Amino acid sequence: MTTVSVDLNADLGEGFGVWTLGDDDAMLDIVTSANVACGFHAGDPATLVRVCRAAAARGVRIGAQVSYRDLAGFGRRFIDVSAEDLVADVMYQIGALSTLAAVAGSSVSYVKPHGALYNAITTNHLQAHAVAEAVHTVDPTLPVLGLAGSVFFTAATELGLRTVPEAFADRAYRPDGQLVSRRERNAVLRDVDEIVDRVISMVTTGRVAAVDGSTIPITVESVCVHGDSPGAVQIATAVRERLIADGVTLAPFS
Amino acid sequence: MTTVSVDLNADLGEGFGVWTLGDDDAMLDIVTSANVACGFHAGDPATLVRVCRAAAARGVRIGAQVSYRDLAGFGRRFIDVSAEDLVADVMYQIGALSTLAAVAGSSVSYVKPHGALYNAITTNHLQAHAVAEAVHTVDPTLPVLGLAGSVFFTAATELGLRTVPEAFADRAYRPDGQLVSRRERNAVLRDVDEIVDRVISMVTTGRVAAVDGSTIPITVESVCVHGDSPGAVQIATAVRERLIADGVTLAPFS
Amino acid sequence: MTTVSVDLNADLGEGFGVWTLGDDDAMLDIVTSANVACGFHAGDPATLVRVCRAAAARGVRIGAQVSYRDLAGFGRRFIDVSAEDLVADVMYQIGALSTLAAVAGSSVSYVKPHGALYNAITTNHLQAHAVAEAVHTVDPTLPVLGLAGSVFFTAATELGLRTVPEAFADRAYRPDGQLVSRRERNAVLRDVDEIVDRVISMVTTGRVAAVDGSTIPITVESVCVHGDSPGAVQIATAVRERLIADGVTLAPFS
Amino acid sequence: MTTVSVDLNADLGEGFGVWTLGDDDAMLDIVTSANVACGFHAGDPATLVRVCRAAAARGVRIGAQVSYRDLAGFGRRFIDVSAEDLVADVMYQIGALSTLAAVAGSSVSYVKPHGALYNAITTNHLQAHAVAEAVHTVDPTLPVLGLAGSVFFTAATELGLRTVPEAFADRAYRPDGQLVSRRERNAVLRDVDEIVDRVISMVTTGRVAAVDGSTIPITVESVCVHGDSPGAVQIATAVRERLIADGVTLAPFS
Repeated sequence: MTTVSVDLNADLGEGFGVWTLGDDDAMLDIVTSANVACGFHAGDPATLVRVCRAAAARGVRIGAQVSYRDLAGFGRRFIDVSAEDLVADVMYQIGALSTLAAVAGSSVSYVKPHGALYNAITTNHLQAHAVAEAVHTVDPTLPVLGLAGSVFFTAATELGLRTVPEAFADRAYRPDGQLVSRRERNAVLRDVDEIVDRVISMVTTGRVAAVDGSTIPITVESVCVHGDSPGAVQIATAVRERLIADGVTLAPFS
Repeated sequence: MTTVSVDLNADLGEGFGVWTLGDDDAMLDIVTSANVACGFHAGDPATLVRVCRAAAARGVRIGAQVSYRDLAGFGRRFIDVSAEDLVADVMYQIGALSTLAAVAGSSVSYVKPHGALYNAITTNHLQAHAVAEAVHTVDPTLPVLGLAGSVFFTAATELGLRTVPEAFADRAYRPDGQLVSRRERNAVLRDVDEIVDRVISMVTTGRVAAVDGSTIPITVESVCVHGDSPGAVQIATAVRERLIADGVTLAPFS
Repeated sequence: MTTVSVDLNADLGEGFGVWTLGDDDAMLDIVTSANVACGFHAGDPATLVRVCRAAAARGVRIGAQVSYRDLAGFGRRFIDVSAEDLVADVMYQIGALSTLAAVAGSSVSYVKPHGALYNAITTNHLQAHAVAEAVHTVDPTLPVLGLAGSVFFTAATELGLRTVPEAFADRAYRPDGQLVSRRERNAVLRDVDEIVDRVISMVTTGRVAAVDGSTIPITVESVCVHGDSPGAVQIATAVRERLIADGVTLAPFS
Repeated sequence: MTTVSVDLNADLGEGFGVWTLGDDDAMLDIVTSANVACGFHAGDPATLVRVCRAAAARGVRIGAQVSYRDLAGFGRRFIDVSAEDLVADVMYQIGALSTLAAVAGSSVSYVKPHGALYNAITTNHLQAHAVAEAVHTVDPTLPVLGLAGSVFFTAATELGLRTVPEAFADRAYRPDGQLVSRRERNAVLRDVDEIVDRVISMVTTGRVAAVDGSTIPITVESVCVHGDSPGAVQIATAVRERLIADGVTLAPFS
């Protein structure tokens, strides 16, 4: 019998100064990979040091959650950044977090773009190539975590970067495998049992139900869960427990 | 006959986005060490990448010019930052610049605090120890460039960091070896010949005239020159040429 | 029989983008004056518009809670700003909030400095005069809310500004009428009953017990309560209810 | 004989802290309307106070040059801001500058969007309506300066705002009256004599030559000149002198 293994990732370190977001400590007990903010959409350095230390202490891998420079918009607004600026912005963020991770006795093991940048580079060639180039220039052995089928993954693959496809525990999928837009009803799932069942299906069978009722294939090396509300932490906990109960090994992909 | 050697350092990369400050290219032809801004008082990532590449291409050493987080004040205003925040802010900045320097084929060879932070840690114990701790935590082999006799140097020495004392080409000194405050008349020298003569004296004899006419000892491993005006570049050029003419070797301390 | 009247003030609008702080809606049902952030330590414009509208809808007065420019430090760190910059920064903030208050059908009725600026200008002459000058230049009829006996109040009085002294519901006082420093034990009171009793004493008798057990005079036109935690909202509610129960009229000072 | 009158406008106050851009004083001797930055793409408050005072002293009208919040990109990058945020951001900026203008003895007489926002709202309905709504909400008598035929002008007109069409002294026009994109060759004119001749043609005949050689109608109540380089100041001076020499009255539109 083959042991199935999967990674669980979540966004962490997303406070800024006096402001906090989510329950980083709770999530660090759940996930195997922490997408740590790098200061451009969230994450003051002192917060990042604490998160990196807490992640390192638990053996949770640290990823650089790079973003547009946009504290006021939390990196959730597309910005038409030039390729030169985006390459430099991404390298700067990876560099800053790498040192904080090293200080914590760990390292940056992967890169995951955040928010509007994540969404933009599923289709925007200029920015997708810029992010891939930045990662490759800093360290060609760094995997990138993102969406299978994205322009970003194509660009990363061309440069020889390892691409790690993730699935979202609480998001609905279209028959073509893309996410249902958040602007549509039913884009986000709320029922814990349904979410847990879907994650099990994705991870153990490589298939999941799309919104039209059809069953579609999905490649998952990591499952993204959220921790930005008490309900979200509860869902993430349920996902973790069910995966373990069903014999799935939780382990970092990197 | 012993060959005397000295380093020349200047602040670079101090633009931000569309705004520029000084003539980085001109200064890179003059100095042997470039104190490159790290984004907190100046220095957007794309500018920093360009400066690091230009420095690397000329064999000019790159130092991390760390600062308070204060773009509006250009890092020239004391901020009563907590030790925890300052340690993390300095580590973050060194980390970001280290990666950009590495991408340029070079590395961060030293750390020089900027502006109000530089001044504060000549006497402020909490902040002096925080900066020293940050440097030491990131890399205990990184030298720090600063003021001999400062609390910062004491703190750095206690941690085993190498301290590199610098002299200012265009500043007047008090009989006790401290700088004449900028609030006083004659704090800044403007006459090129006088400046050049003083630098030669400092470097080759280890002595310089203080404002009261007395001659004081001064330890100089690096001479700080400025490039933020056409006149400043002219002075820096004259300093360089005179040192070479007098047989002094210009070489990075690191 | 004379009716005693007092104002209740609290800090509001202190989120930024995705981040929130405290329960603005709950506090607007408690206070008569809202110290609304102006964007420099907290308060993105959309948040400020919402808070101003909610305050106007309830008849709660709006004050401009001006601050150092320091989102990362939430305005809690002293910054050695020049007088020219501080005057301009304060005028800019009052101006921005005034328009948002006007749009909400209200206006800025007073100015209350925030955090480290509030503390600094109890003793720092240069900054105290700068803040007073800024308020006076924008509108000489704007009252300032602050600490009796502060250098700020002296500077404001010299310019003819109305000064409104406030007391803190949950802070201990020294025999000389100054606040016990937060660095000392017992600086902040936690017991609801004790806090409520003290506020009643301050408001109705003009006297309060100092930390040494002595009773000291205190002039109170406004009582500052907090709303940045569930416990804080509970205390503020108890203060309000007790004042009403004891026949004190709650009304804005302005 | 009818006297022809036209306004000359330019961007001012676009430094930030230690950084400067262009020669504000020189431009204030040339233009009749100053588009003053409001702090979001440029313009620290102390700079804005100085520019407002200098404009007021010369009788130059002050306009609020509102922008996306983007110091690093100087407001030149499209940001996909929500309508709620954009409305609030624009009101905040107008409010801040209004108070600084009032302090200088003047007032904000009009609003001109800056950079990428200016370009975006020529076609982006959501953002065009947001900017128009913000201006209208703050003051329905404030004119807006912009591009004839833009979605922004349609939205502003629907709300009853006065729209003031401007022409660019140094830009080439397409046969349909739109600007040739800066990505194309010949988008920007450099020859002083040609620029001056074109401005005279636009202002006195209401027609100008398009890039294909055809002559097109153009409505001009204000001519935009630049001051961000010595050459630009020279062109602006030549435009002003020629207009006066040809008997055109230079006067603010507002």
